Amino acid sequence: MQTSPLLEYLIENLRCLPGVGPKSAQRMAYHLLQRDRRGGMDLARALTDAMSKIGHCSHCRTFTEEETCTICNNPRRQNSGLLCVVEQPSDIQAIEQTGQFSGRYFVLMGHLSPLDGIGPREIGLDLLQKRLESEHFEEVILATNPTVEGDATANYIAELCLQQGIKASRIAHGIPVGGELEAVDGTTLTHSFLGRREMHY
Amino acid sequence: MQTSPLLEYLIENLRCLPGVGPKSAQRMAYHLLQRDRRGGMDLARALTDAMSKIGHCSHCRTFTEEETCTICNNPRRQNSGLLCVVEQPSDIQAIEQTGQFSGRYFVLMGHLSPLDGIGPREIGLDLLQKRLESEHFEEVILATNPTVEGDATANYIAELCLQQGIKASRIAHGIPVGGELEAVDGTTLTHSFLGRREMHY
Repeated sequence: MQTSPLLEYLIENLRCLPGVGPKSAQRMAYHLLQRDRRGGMDLARALTDAMSKIGHCSHCRTFTEEETCTICNNPRRQNSGLLCVVEQPSDIQAIEQTGQFSGRYFVLMGHLSPLDGIGPREIGLDLLQKRLESEHFEEVILATNPTVEGDATANYIAELCLQQGIKASRIAHGIPVGGELEAVDGTTLTHSFLGRREMHY
Repeated sequence: MQTSPLLEYLIENLRCLPGVGPKSAQRMAYHLLQRDRRGGMDLARALTDAMSKIGHCSHCRTFTEEETCTICNNPRRQNSGLLCVVEQPSDIQAIEQTGQFSGRYFVLMGHLSPLDGIGPREIGLDLLQKRLESEHFEEVILATNPTVEGDATANYIAELCLQQGIKASRIAHGIPVGGELEAVDGTTLTHSFLGRREMHY
């Protein structure tokens, strides 16, 4: 029994956050009330703004509160001729952190999964096809996850690209840097053999 | 780089929660945006209400949005003649869960710590003394933490109680149930020997 209904309500609602159970929710609520009420108010404002104002970019479908996102608006990226297709907006963040890619993105917000009723339209492939037809791309990099569904989705999009005469490539699968051969599963090891590259000095 | 300033602001503000680092904050933000916008809005409302409306009970100093908390208002608890002194509002929650105590509480919101400028007034001992003088208590149970500061605070309050002729008791320290003797530190083991009880059949 909590001594305050509002506190109880707060603890209950904190559990909508992933990875937050009853104990953590209680710790968070008490922490905010005792030590950081201002932080709690700021968080409430940030949540309200984000939940109500953030929509999807009309070009790449990632999260943005504008009509188009900052990446799609960047003229240098518009001229790169590269498009990277990913499953989730968080994948963009991961790729951006590598600093290796300076093109634009297209976010599927999922992957093909006919059994769940998720077909090409649901993951925005009609919009992607329009972009492939109307804009100039030299290469489409397929960075969907290396799962059965991710691979199937990549194959499907590769076919769309080839119909438009655009080169399609798939990111490499293999042993993670710093990993050990014996700790890696057989399928990954197979991929790393098939994808081997000649060494040059 | 995030594609949306509002998203960036949300991720930054989620980090005011204890135990939430940059990676978890990002995961939480994407989860809410993709799967639970309504939950996010509810959480924002719960936070705003809790941060702005929850104050302290005028009797026991725990968190409540009313003048006095639900425990202090309970007539059965008012007649129990028992008062339990704890350091934090969360301690009340822990004790309530045992179902062993049916008296009222007094929350210090800390412990005596003269080096940090926390004296008797800062932990509300003036209010406690007034209650000891004006209300009828048979026993005051001192449930501050078994730390140097917690023990010192308990001793200080015990003296206040004795001045009013009220019995003061300290919760038992010893080996946790299910614990192993060899895994317990020496001080705890000493406590468990000093606090031994005769066995009755």
